[in-house]
Amino acid sequence: MAETSKTQIKFGILGCAEIARKLSRAISLSPNATIHAIGSRSLEKAAKFAATNNFPPHAKIYGTYDAVLDDPEVDAVYIPLPTSLHIKWAVLAAQKKKHVLLEKPVALNVGEFDRILEACEVNNVQLMDSTMWMHHPRTVKMKEFLSDKSKFGEIRSIHATFTFAADQDFLENDIRVKPDLDALGALGDAGWYCARAILWANDFNLPKSVTALPGTIFNKAGVIISCGAFLRWDDGRVATLHCSFLANLTMTIVASGTKGGLHLSDFIIPFEETQATFTAATESGFTELATGWNPLPSQHTVMNDNPQEVCMVTEFARLVKSVKHDGAAVEKLWPTLSRKTQLVLDAVKTSIEKGGESVSLS
Amino acid sequence: MAETSKTQIKFGILGCAEIARKLSRAISLSPNATIHAIGSRSLEKAAKFAATNNFPPHAKIYGTYDAVLDDPEVDAVYIPLPTSLHIKWAVLAAQKKKHVLLEKPVALNVGEFDRILEACEVNNVQLMDSTMWMHHPRTVKMKEFLSDKSKFGEIRSIHATFTFAADQDFLENDIRVKPDLDALGALGDAGWYCARAILWANDFNLPKSVTALPGTIFNKAGVIISCGAFLRWDDGRVATLHCSFLANLTMTIVASGTKGGLHLSDFIIPFEETQATFTAATESGFTELATGWNPLPSQHTVMNDNPQEVCMVTEFARLVKSVKHDGAAVEKLWPTLSRKTQLVLDAVKTSIEKGGESVSLS
Repeated sequence: MAETSKTQIKFGILGCAEIARKLSRAISLSPNATIHAIGSRSLEKAAKFAATNNFPPHAKIYGTYDAVLDDPEVDAVYIPLPTSLHIKWAVLAAQKKKHVLLEKPVALNVGEFDRILEACEVNNVQLMDSTMWMHHPRTVKMKEFLSDKSKFGEIRSIHATFTFAADQDFLENDIRVKPDLDALGALGDAGWYCARAILWANDFNLPKSVTALPGTIFNKAGVIISCGAFLRWDDGRVATLHCSFLANLTMTIVASGTKGGLHLSDFIIPFEETQATFTAATESGFTELATGWNPLPSQHTVMNDNPQEVCMVTEFARLVKSVKHDGAAVEKLWPTLSRKTQLVLDAVKTSIEKGGESVSLS
Repeated sequence: MAETSKTQIKFGILGCAEIARKLSRAISLSPNATIHAIGSRSLEKAAKFAATNNFPPHAKIYGTYDAVLDDPEVDAVYIPLPTSLHIKWAVLAAQKKKHVLLEKPVALNVGEFDRILEACEVNNVQLMDSTMWMHHPRTVKMKEFLSDKSKFGEIRSIHATFTFAADQDFLENDIRVKPDLDALGALGDAGWYCARAILWANDFNLPKSVTALPGTIFNKAGVIISCGAFLRWDDGRVATLHCSFLANLTMTIVASGTKGGLHLSDFIIPFEETQATFTAATESGFTELATGWNPLPSQHTVMNDNPQEVCMVTEFARLVKSVKHDGAAVEKLWPTLSRKTQLVLDAVKTSIEKGGESVSLS
């Protein structure tokens, strides 16, 4: 059934973050979603944002976040505010019966996130974090491969890394290096994706323990700008993650299973918008005298009609519509994944604070 | 100047290891080297090995290793014996004035290797370990990239992994799982390459500290079959390595520098024998709205006339010839690299034995 303006989910956006530009486009491109409102602490800034990001003419421009939450027509809000503000605005949004699409990291810690979760449950609103790559059709294909016992077997190890080379301005002024705004720094901003990838590849089974690797780098204000961690499961599975603001863009997953391997170098943002690849190997071996590989790993290309962030918004809006129009229960999967990811980040942070002591998670 | 049978370096091979088949072919293909002799504890086995591996008709077949060392025509020996036998046979070879191409790991520990080193120095023979990928022309090209401050900048992190899925027979019977033969297990056999790659990418500067990651897996005899380690330098550079006999073939390097990145998935044995690729990225960024990468990483293909093991044998024979015919000094670079690699393995092993305590290296 084609969506009409009546059934489209109406989004309100809280704040004019850079990432909100990408999400605004995604909402516009989603058949079941539409931009209804944007609020900023500055009405002028909100108006400028709307004008420069192709907002529909009917979009409401507000000079406060509260005004967005008080707009009875807003079904759902997208919250790209600094992490320290998530608890306030996500809880308020839920209390105003707005469904919540929340930027990552979802909170400063699991304690805060649990309060958000509780507010969403009490008010029967859908919660989803904005981890776009989870919604790429490539991710589905990769998961099929990882789940195929005959092709990948059981996972034994995974390494996930996300680094980017922040410039001096970012390192001095970005909210992601400010202790009062995004106190988790590179761990929250970049490590989030690595932790998610590791959990994803391990069927979201939490590791038994998380150990921060030595060598965490902090800025002068004490915010993490580079760190790593080691995760371990009871059955011998291991994982490492590395995240940093100090090295050239790297978005790599290397996963090894008993029978196969998975590899890609652009897991968070694919190299190209309309197609994405990954490399899979099964029962890799060598040619005679080990002068080459046989079989070779194979490259798989997945075409996508919609960018991954559009897929995400469409899925979120579909769930919201089910709750709103069909009386369905909220989908608990997504907040569960958010919580597990946050749990891993919390454990890394705790381990760093304890000088690299292992932190038990199960 | 074309090589003649007079100037070709004459190799003796100690033992009929599987890897000696590959090396025999490499010696045959090297213009400046020739197979002169093979010795095994079984004359029959040596004869069969020679017959099935295209040895030249004039090749000598011996029923002991000593006979190879006592053959006055042998210039150099290739030693693919179990690691625990390296010290005995490499020292003896040096004492008999034979140059030594030694399989990795070069020894059970640096103490043993230093005795080999000393014997080679005293007897003025060239020592080189058999880490083939070091000699691939791709490695030269990759090093050029890593050394280019404008393209790669300063290295910040590197992850190197080598795993392969050993079958039940290997896990029960291979010399690499026997405490009296290759006591370093997967660390010596697979971790060697990872440690070498990490040192190589760091201009062979030793890390300040090495820390074994939790989760080392041992077989019933106490030999390591899976482990990992974290390396750290004073200036914030970090590295992780993972090696295992329990996961599908994986040979990956992911290195991130301040300006660029390097990646390849077949660093030890290239996918194909006649060409090899690597991926390099410089100042990677995103398209407008971060919907893709700009610039994209670029793939570099390096053609090689000779397989990497032939390049290795040719380089070794060239050095031997310089010493033998031109009175040149032995090249100390190669044993220095061997020693540093062994130092890292020793540190990983010590850290494992100390329950994951950091081991200082500088």
